[in-house]
Amino acid sequence: MHALWLENHRLRLRDDVPIPSPPAGEALVRVIRAGICNTDIELTRGYYPFTGVPGHEFVGVVERGPAALVGRRTVGEINAVCGTCPACTGGRRTHCERRTVLGIVNRHGAFADYLTLPIENLHPVPENVATDAAVFTEPLAAALEIQEQVAIGAGQRVLVVGDGKLGQLVAQTLALTGCTLTAVGRHDEKLALLAARGIATGPPDGVGRAAFDVAVECTGNPEGFAVAQRAVRPRGTLVLKSTYAGALTLDASALVVNELTLVGSRCGPFAPALRLLAEARVAVEPLIHARYPLAQVIAAFDHAVRPGVLKVLVQMEA
Amino acid sequence: MHALWLENHRLRLRDDVPIPSPPAGEALVRVIRAGICNTDIELTRGYYPFTGVPGHEFVGVVERGPAALVGRRTVGEINAVCGTCPACTGGRRTHCERRTVLGIVNRHGAFADYLTLPIENLHPVPENVATDAAVFTEPLAAALEIQEQVAIGAGQRVLVVGDGKLGQLVAQTLALTGCTLTAVGRHDEKLALLAARGIATGPPDGVGRAAFDVAVECTGNPEGFAVAQRAVRPRGTLVLKSTYAGALTLDASALVVNELTLVGSRCGPFAPALRLLAEARVAVEPLIHARYPLAQVIAAFDHAVRPGVLKVLVQMEA
Repeated sequence: MHALWLENHRLRLRDDVPIPSPPAGEALVRVIRAGICNTDIELTRGYYPFTGVPGHEFVGVVERGPAALVGRRTVGEINAVCGTCPACTGGRRTHCERRTVLGIVNRHGAFADYLTLPIENLHPVPENVATDAAVFTEPLAAALEIQEQVAIGAGQRVLVVGDGKLGQLVAQTLALTGCTLTAVGRHDEKLALLAARGIATGPPDGVGRAAFDVAVECTGNPEGFAVAQRAVRPRGTLVLKSTYAGALTLDASALVVNELTLVGSRCGPFAPALRLLAEARVAVEPLIHARYPLAQVIAAFDHAVRPGVLKVLVQMEA
Repeated sequence: MHALWLENHRLRLRDDVPIPSPPAGEALVRVIRAGICNTDIELTRGYYPFTGVPGHEFVGVVERGPAALVGRRTVGEINAVCGTCPACTGGRRTHCERRTVLGIVNRHGAFADYLTLPIENLHPVPENVATDAAVFTEPLAAALEIQEQVAIGAGQRVLVVGDGKLGQLVAQTLALTGCTLTAVGRHDEKLALLAARGIATGPPDGVGRAAFDVAVECTGNPEGFAVAQRAVRPRGTLVLKSTYAGALTLDASALVVNELTLVGSRCGPFAPALRLLAEARVAVEPLIHARYPLAQVIAAFDHAVRPGVLKVLVQMEA
């Protein structure tokens, strides 16, 4: 089959990768659409060691698996877990000590004609959700993870720092909680997408000190972190939603003196993400900036790293 | 009166400081005992800008104030607050935006014959609590703040990193929760104090990766932070109980990937601290390594910074 291949931080398109054979408990999925995530870009920069097929945001059609799923469009949770380690039995399956992660850790991913995933990871896509929209299920679930970890409700003043792919989904999902939301970023056209959803927006420099109960850092850079830390009131919560290239240096004394809580946040629940898409309560398709066929996946990556670009999709069929 | 005076990071003993005159709502307290805290030592190293009388751990006798307090031994909460700012009205009085802090921020402290504090800050010392023990009320309250912020109970695996003054009190108070407690440090004689209280102890290098639900960092150095971060399981909690000299560099990506929660923790509640002392449920007097009269307070500071030394007290009367 055709597949994008990452090796020594270099991407190349291969046509000689064997179609995977699903082991017991897994399904064979024919990928029809995949999205490029910042994590994919970071893989090419060597932030994580990974050799193989990248890609973890996808929609596919089950070709081999349970009868209830065969022929259906599905999305898939990316952590394949053992079910028996302390993390799994402790209810933290996404933290399984022996997990593989689709396109990220020891498991070939979605920029390919086919992938396999455990059957328990697959979720059928509701009929009324377009394939282009369903590709956003995984990052939307990651955005919803914030609400699994931090109680956010009406009356709370919440700041989202960063107007990129993740910041857009984080802001849209937080807006649904009834909190008093502000999103800040450096790109007028991206902020305009949020303003069109009724979200208050502005530049990072205009953020008041200690003016927010919760701040969500979605930039993955130390400047964004500093904006978020400064914005949170004493005993407030700072959610870290982005990974960071290298080490992060922070003012830990201010964190202690102001008794801040920092919460790292990663993968989230698929079911509510699919519900939001089915009910059209979030608008993800305006975030799509380009589509490329798998044959041009290298060009798709080149496009995705350009400044100001949001989501780039890869299509495996016309 | 006699008072220790800090100016340009230099300490000197003065005999010409006027006895303070308590403003409305404040009491005049004759100090009888004061403890040297790491924060006092950090003040002399210039970590915070402060000119005046340092010292915030004390026992004193009220000389002018409400009849119910005059002549009684008291301890005092160190944050003097406005009562009207958003932090105060929001129930976060220790984070008052206009606070002064005894011996730390814009308020003369306890290494002196007299101090003043708002009457509402003062707590009478129970008769059966020795003055030497009551000096520990403030740091003991700070240790108890952890339990105000993080639910800790039986069955949880909790690690205390650091066997110094603060680590000792943190470990002793956590031991009362019924959690499965381990304290690690680099000083055999300090760990022995904890072992004598039935607490499991060991060296920092022996700590298992992801073996704890909660870790409390009490060293204030990056090595201690690294031990604590490594020790916490995914979705676990890392409490920062020490301030840090300068910036702290950490692996923020691991924090995100493991979805850790970091909690900064500062001043705590005096009433339960006094209860623990009255019920003799913690042993603070074994932590006293030396006593000096106020006339030798400079020597007391020299003693307090020596390696291996725990609490040094300053006595204002024989």
